[in-house]
Amino acid sequence: MKALPKAYFTEADSAEVVTGQNVNAKDARLKQVMEIITRHLHAAIKEIEPTQEEWMKAILYLTATGHKSDDWRQEFILLSDVLGVSMLVDAINSRRPKGASENTVLGPFHIGGTPEYEMGFNICLDGKGEDMVARGRVLDVDGNPLEGVKIDVWQANDEGFYDVQQKGIQPDFNLRGVFRTGADGTYWFKAVRPQHYSIPDDGPVGELLYALGRHPYRPAHLHYILSKEGYDEVTTHIFDPDDIYINNDAVFGVKESLIAEFVKVEDPAKIAEMGFEGPFYWDVKFDFVLAPKT
Amino acid sequence: MKALPKAYFTEADSAEVVTGQNVNAKDARLKQVMEIITRHLHAAIKEIEPTQEEWMKAILYLTATGHKSDDWRQEFILLSDVLGVSMLVDAINSRRPKGASENTVLGPFHIGGTPEYEMGFNICLDGKGEDMVARGRVLDVDGNPLEGVKIDVWQANDEGFYDVQQKGIQPDFNLRGVFRTGADGTYWFKAVRPQHYSIPDDGPVGELLYALGRHPYRPAHLHYILSKEGYDEVTTHIFDPDDIYINNDAVFGVKESLIAEFVKVEDPAKIAEMGFEGPFYWDVKFDFVLAPKT
Repeated sequence: MKALPKAYFTEADSAEVVTGQNVNAKDARLKQVMEIITRHLHAAIKEIEPTQEEWMKAILYLTATGHKSDDWRQEFILLSDVLGVSMLVDAINSRRPKGASENTVLGPFHIGGTPEYEMGFNICLDGKGEDMVARGRVLDVDGNPLEGVKIDVWQANDEGFYDVQQKGIQPDFNLRGVFRTGADGTYWFKAVRPQHYSIPDDGPVGELLYALGRHPYRPAHLHYILSKEGYDEVTTHIFDPDDIYINNDAVFGVKESLIAEFVKVEDPAKIAEMGFEGPFYWDVKFDFVLAPKT
Repeated sequence: MKALPKAYFTEADSAEVVTGQNVNAKDARLKQVMEIITRHLHAAIKEIEPTQEEWMKAILYLTATGHKSDDWRQEFILLSDVLGVSMLVDAINSRRPKGASENTVLGPFHIGGTPEYEMGFNICLDGKGEDMVARGRVLDVDGNPLEGVKIDVWQANDEGFYDVQQKGIQPDFNLRGVFRTGADGTYWFKAVRPQHYSIPDDGPVGELLYALGRHPYRPAHLHYILSKEGYDEVTTHIFDPDDIYINNDAVFGVKESLIAEFVKVEDPAKIAEMGFEGPFYWDVKFDFVLAPKT
């Protein structure tokens, strides 16, 4: 045990006085993390110069955020999301060479056990919504097609709900599917055009968003996890560029490279070829590029 | 309503992307505070580079801190305390000219309704502990004695508990008193030498302290609030320099200027003069200086 230095408080050295007491920390990483947190926390407070009432408001806000969280609702994750922290942590953990597909947040609606289908399967099991075909290629960073890539997809329906949010209303595994690329690296499946939706806004996070003049909506998107042995797994969305919230995702999930095109196809021959009834469907084309595992 | 800028996420501009969405904040102060918090939060995360598991650990830590808090226990205040944040906020809100008595945190054990006594009263109502006399003068910054200063004092007993923590064991208002200075600016009262005590350590804050190789103890102290019309109210403690925790207060309440002297008096004449039975008492002398209200 090292002797603790004197911890006499001064405003000027406030952070150093605090972190100086961590000389006997049981874990070097925790010591490092708390040193950084304490330093930035004190710097923020010195810049804010909160009144005692403002400090108490912050204490009560954090407490309410904890109290809102239970087995079903995680308000601190939501807070992390709307402050861009979840995206930042994801970005830090998924840095890739230029040209490789970028990550975005996983979100809370991924589940295991999704059935694997042949390419072309329609994952919309209840037929509700505007028909859509999602298709493209999975390539390596040199542009070669990748075979045997597992593609795990899921999305909200045309009312903005995932199957797990509407048990008994949507069929189980509605708008979810697992596909595997062949030798040409292509993928395609049918679904319906997803809708934007609101993150839960009836708690402290919603209160903060509205006070900041923000909204709780996420623009419409399709989720993908692409994985293949030897390659960096990509967890991402592709986004509908025509969604009214595309520029202002409440959780900052949109990266410019992830905005797809939704092309309206009204050609009866193409509609018939896809096995749709018409009068139109949405054609969403998006290629993915996997970087080698480092 | 101003048009929101595009919020396409990039790691490099992460904080600006987030704060850029606050252009329609309903309150300029909230906008400013959230801008500062977001900037420092993102800077801290970029320096920490947390793994997803570490991020989740932080989420669950904050959640547990919220869940530990109820009407009787405020774990986020404790967290603020042990990270030196409560002291920093107090320091920012009580800057005074050099020579004036410094503030320290109020703590959770101040109550209203404390009886006012004549100088010299023994506020230890159950006679338990080592006798003590606390005395000194209250002066202005020019060294003139201040008349009519209200002195509100409270302290833990010689087992380290406040009366409100031991309802039915200690008498109500034990070791609490209100006094008022006369023309000479002096104060004095009798009590018992207080003991150090532990902040609550059975929650997430205790867990953090132990992981950091710290302890949950506060060195023995006497609480004071000194108030007089026209002067900046002083909320402070004076500390026992011989306490084993004097250099390492778990909540960083100790400032060098607030360390008193505890002198052991064994002179039978002085003991008799004070009305004690002996064989000794502690003489604690401390002068306070009040700054004019600004």
